[in-house]
Amino acid sequence: MRIAQVAPLYESVPPRLYGGTERVVSWLTDELVRRGHEVTLFASGDSRTHARLVSAWPRALRLDPAQPDPFALHTLELAQIFSRADDFDVVHCHVDYLAFPYGRLVATPVVHTLHGRLDLRPLIHVLTELRDVPLVSISDSQREPLAGLDLNWVATVHHGLPVAEVPAVTEAGRGGYLVFLGRMSAEKRPDLAIAVAKRVGLPLIMAAKVDRPDRDYFEREIRPQLGHPLIEYIGEVSDAEKWRLLGDALALLFPIDWPEPFGLAMIEALACGTPVVARPGGAVPEIIRDGEVGFLADTVDELVAAVKRVDLIDRARCRRWAEERFSVGVMADRYEAVYRKKAGQSGPAFPRSFR
Amino acid sequence: MRIAQVAPLYESVPPRLYGGTERVVSWLTDELVRRGHEVTLFASGDSRTHARLVSAWPRALRLDPAQPDPFALHTLELAQIFSRADDFDVVHCHVDYLAFPYGRLVATPVVHTLHGRLDLRPLIHVLTELRDVPLVSISDSQREPLAGLDLNWVATVHHGLPVAEVPAVTEAGRGGYLVFLGRMSAEKRPDLAIAVAKRVGLPLIMAAKVDRPDRDYFEREIRPQLGHPLIEYIGEVSDAEKWRLLGDALALLFPIDWPEPFGLAMIEALACGTPVVARPGGAVPEIIRDGEVGFLADTVDELVAAVKRVDLIDRARCRRWAEERFSVGVMADRYEAVYRKKAGQSGPAFPRSFR
Repeated sequence: MRIAQVAPLYESVPPRLYGGTERVVSWLTDELVRRGHEVTLFASGDSRTHARLVSAWPRALRLDPAQPDPFALHTLELAQIFSRADDFDVVHCHVDYLAFPYGRLVATPVVHTLHGRLDLRPLIHVLTELRDVPLVSISDSQREPLAGLDLNWVATVHHGLPVAEVPAVTEAGRGGYLVFLGRMSAEKRPDLAIAVAKRVGLPLIMAAKVDRPDRDYFEREIRPQLGHPLIEYIGEVSDAEKWRLLGDALALLFPIDWPEPFGLAMIEALACGTPVVARPGGAVPEIIRDGEVGFLADTVDELVAAVKRVDLIDRARCRRWAEERFSVGVMADRYEAVYRKKAGQSGPAFPRSFR
Repeated sequence: MRIAQVAPLYESVPPRLYGGTERVVSWLTDELVRRGHEVTLFASGDSRTHARLVSAWPRALRLDPAQPDPFALHTLELAQIFSRADDFDVVHCHVDYLAFPYGRLVATPVVHTLHGRLDLRPLIHVLTELRDVPLVSISDSQREPLAGLDLNWVATVHHGLPVAEVPAVTEAGRGGYLVFLGRMSAEKRPDLAIAVAKRVGLPLIMAAKVDRPDRDYFEREIRPQLGHPLIEYIGEVSDAEKWRLLGDALALLFPIDWPEPFGLAMIEALACGTPVVARPGGAVPEIIRDGEVGFLADTVDELVAAVKRVDLIDRARCRRWAEERFSVGVMADRYEAVYRKKAGQSGPAFPRSFR
């Protein structure tokens, strides 16, 4: 098929450091190319891909010192893709609401994977008004705030990663430490991760970015705790660093306190053979089976108890769990089914101008 | 004609207090209705209009305490208008770059009035990439940063207001004070207005909003000067208050220090019969003829000298100047010509999907 992948411009595809959505788009795009599809990737100009690359801007926006207006550049990206929509059999958008209006205006089927939390107004208002827009959720739990709205859900497709390319470490956590990975924001509860590590007496390595809106929180709540001998903060890491960091860890701590739409760090850990100790919010129970590839626990006491039992988890089982359920192959199979379904339909209503 | 007017959602149409773009859209829309056109206004739900109103959100966003995401709601607004574009003979957008991609995707002609400054990257990048988008500038000077880019300029249309509805005060400035009107931001130079008023020994009434990004500037540079007995700050004003305030003033001080794209306050003052003392940046020389309806002056010394001579200006002449050049009738004539030109053309290229 001729497939357009429309990525956000905030990070390159794949991201150089942190970046969930663009990382998943990268994995999916390269897998679709490998399967023989003709894929065009709309993404920042510093992206690396096996697809044809079309770029509205030369650099990823988050790390661009010029801080250009992201909405102007995403508007340009959408103009670039939709003014040539008939070059494609399907257009797959990952830019959330910004692309919603376009599917009504072109003959090519358009499908949108929603990557963020969906419990926020006015997004709910927008979705309710545009309930014909074909949507893919990244977990079943992500949809919950929208239950009863009669939206046009096409599928849930869990994220998947190229497990075969991840070096598996199936000996038990050679590094003897715990890991916190992702964003330093209140809803990710880095403070809880620190509390658990201190209580259990194990080193904690924190590899995370600090976004502008999270700086106050980080300086006030987290920075003062970084002096503790067990706690090490290393900022953002590259993919290669991340696989080593996760692979040598006893467990990933994922003590979130929000409706996590997916939680990429969990499947990255599992692919390395590393169990996950998580609080059961959002999509977490869809990804972690308690007692099998990690533990679900709520309070600090329960989290501490879970970490103490983490050597009961079979690391090879974690790796297999990722291969069977969260590999890029499984994800691409599901998206191919979505594309076939959309492209096989009689197509969206032509814009009324052309009837 | 069947005309769609697409307004920003930041302020109601017309705005309750400050708000340039939405005020102009209001004047234009009601005049087009008066002339017998079938006009649909896309704007916030608290707008008041003689046109048919379609609203993506019930309240103007700037004063909505919920602070909803403006880009999500403008996206919804654009979906609302463009999914029914064939209901209109022309679509007239006032939302800057956000609407640029849509004209290529519908058969109805779309024209965009640009209301802001155009010397900013990445807007220049976006315009360069989308140079087929039909554009209207609000002054000739507004286009200057884009000279040589071969964009699709359709016209310059100066703003106009319903002069007949403005109470004219053609006696010389009964209130005996100067006025500063608009935004408290560095580029508007409220500090210069204060310096001039103090030097010339006349009261200065400052009617202006303080935007979030301008708060630091206001607190640091302006607030400490408000204790002076000649300087009075009254915040934002309604239309009725504004006409009285301007009408009774000796002159409007407009000592700007940026490429002002138009400068609505100047024509509001002229409509009241009040001369304008302005620094000659941006569109100012297109609006104020030096020595005839006010003075152009640069330094504080020159501005002070100009204020001292302001009783030489014929206030009835100022009012006539506004009537002849900056009335809503003149503006509507010009936009009608733009609409006829666009609607009379063979139409934009059909999207390639439909060839």
